[in-house]
Amino acid sequence: MKAIAIDLGGTNIKAAVVDQEQGIIEQTSTPTHADLGRDYLLDRIASTVAELTKADGAIGIGMGLPGMVNREQTTIYYAPNLPGWEEVNAAEEITKRTGLPCRIENDANIAALGSLHFGVGQKHDDFIILTLGTGVGGGIIVNRQLFKGSRGMAGELGHVIIDYHGPLSNSVTRGTIEAYLGQRFLSRFASDMIMQHPENPLYKKFSKDFDKLEPVDLTQEANNGNQLAIEILAKTGQRLGYAIINYTHMMDIRKFVLSGGVSKAGEWLFEPAREIVKKHMMVPFQDGFEIIYEDLGNDSSLLGAAGLAFDSFA
Amino acid sequence: MKAIAIDLGGTNIKAAVVDQEQGIIEQTSTPTHADLGRDYLLDRIASTVAELTKADGAIGIGMGLPGMVNREQTTIYYAPNLPGWEEVNAAEEITKRTGLPCRIENDANIAALGSLHFGVGQKHDDFIILTLGTGVGGGIIVNRQLFKGSRGMAGELGHVIIDYHGPLSNSVTRGTIEAYLGQRFLSRFASDMIMQHPENPLYKKFSKDFDKLEPVDLTQEANNGNQLAIEILAKTGQRLGYAIINYTHMMDIRKFVLSGGVSKAGEWLFEPAREIVKKHMMVPFQDGFEIIYEDLGNDSSLLGAAGLAFDSFA
Repeated sequence: MKAIAIDLGGTNIKAAVVDQEQGIIEQTSTPTHADLGRDYLLDRIASTVAELTKADGAIGIGMGLPGMVNREQTTIYYAPNLPGWEEVNAAEEITKRTGLPCRIENDANIAALGSLHFGVGQKHDDFIILTLGTGVGGGIIVNRQLFKGSRGMAGELGHVIIDYHGPLSNSVTRGTIEAYLGQRFLSRFASDMIMQHPENPLYKKFSKDFDKLEPVDLTQEANNGNQLAIEILAKTGQRLGYAIINYTHMMDIRKFVLSGGVSKAGEWLFEPAREIVKKHMMVPFQDGFEIIYEDLGNDSSLLGAAGLAFDSFA
Repeated sequence: MKAIAIDLGGTNIKAAVVDQEQGIIEQTSTPTHADLGRDYLLDRIASTVAELTKADGAIGIGMGLPGMVNREQTTIYYAPNLPGWEEVNAAEEITKRTGLPCRIENDANIAALGSLHFGVGQKHDDFIILTLGTGVGGGIIVNRQLFKGSRGMAGELGHVIIDYHGPLSNSVTRGTIEAYLGQRFLSRFASDMIMQHPENPLYKKFSKDFDKLEPVDLTQEANNGNQLAIEILAKTGQRLGYAIINYTHMMDIRKFVLSGGVSKAGEWLFEPAREIVKKHMMVPFQDGFEIIYEDLGNDSSLLGAAGLAFDSFA
């Protein structure tokens, strides 16, 4: 079985033919230019799909995009980075232009479907994925299906509060987990810590321009045995632990799949998170608790979009 | 249609015959004596049910109890107040003694089913109930069914963190919403505030014995125009607002049903909660948001237990 997958990103439109067994068998890409307007972008998506030469027999199209999507997975309700797309039945517009049935879903939910169909999530009926990138996204799988809530917008896990007095992020609320684990916020926290330690190699490297400090630098230094880097990542992992407690106490989901750039810090983050969970999560929820690293990398969005098509049209 | 409802409380076992249209048509009660052991208690439950004279034709038994219950609604997994009940298939034990099919569920989930079948929840497919009593319990209704999560323990909403540096409660975590809204914790917070205001009528009334201060005293004083009482309840309502944001950002559920003793403070709590939600919840989640007071009172647990039987056996 094959499906067409589209990843509508801020920079590029990617399209692929994905086989359920073999994964991505063909892939193409074109710049997005969202600023040229919705209809132009819809036409570009269709022409990108038309370039695919191995699409014969595909059962339908799944598309991931940066926005909130309704329960029916057809219409976007909130898309700050896609001007003109709000309350547009994008699935129908794509079908008009391609002749194929289409469903859409937001990026983090697509990542969850990628893991469910092609990644570590294959082994779990119920799990939560956290995408740790520029922002923190979330997707919730219950009984091998996306949990969408009453209107389709469930899983805004980056906007769950762990300290209502805490720092601001892109959120309208203080102390959400995104304010600690989002890339920029983690870098800012790290800079504040490093500024207090002029003897540290990280100070020497970044004190002239802290804007260049990225989470990967912390991971590298932690791997080198730099105690300050280890401490910064540990503190961040502890905060992740508190967020996970909130998700689990609420939904009784015990498998956490972590993906995205910041998750590459791996055990430097995960082990402190596990320690907090062990200490502060209610005992009956501990059995079967697991944090798992997802390694699908850049392909996860296309694989997830294909998963959406398989779930919708197979 | 009729069902038998049991409410297994710390002090009393209540049993009732509940008609789907007419509600409770017969009710009886006997002291619990959980300390005399599980088998004794199971026998007492059965003999209490046997006292009911209008049970002919009942389709089955639903029972609420203070503990965590598995997905199949048969077995208790965590019941600190019911010695000897852990990992017991209580539903089967009741069936053995009564000849009727039985399902069990924890108290807060029972409250959710009470609201769904007989209360304000009848009007909503998706809602969250918060029971504000000694502790803070929660029940989640999705698509007119209890949301149970991967192992049945979902909805521990009182143990959701809003400030991980915050005060302790019965929870193993700091700054859960129970640490602010649980009756004892609210009274303690109020006492601390009142001690700083010796001129206030609440000081005169309670300074000799703050243990006597109950949330209802705050409500009464707020109704009298006491600014300090209004402020204490407002601060508490704001914290409730942050918890609600967490629930909604996670599950996209927009109707909140509040019940239990502390919820009788009504608008003194709810309006500050709404203000926080309006200010700090992401805009796409605001549409349709509502906080609703549930007025089923003491009957809610029997009505909910009957609802469990209707859902299971009708």
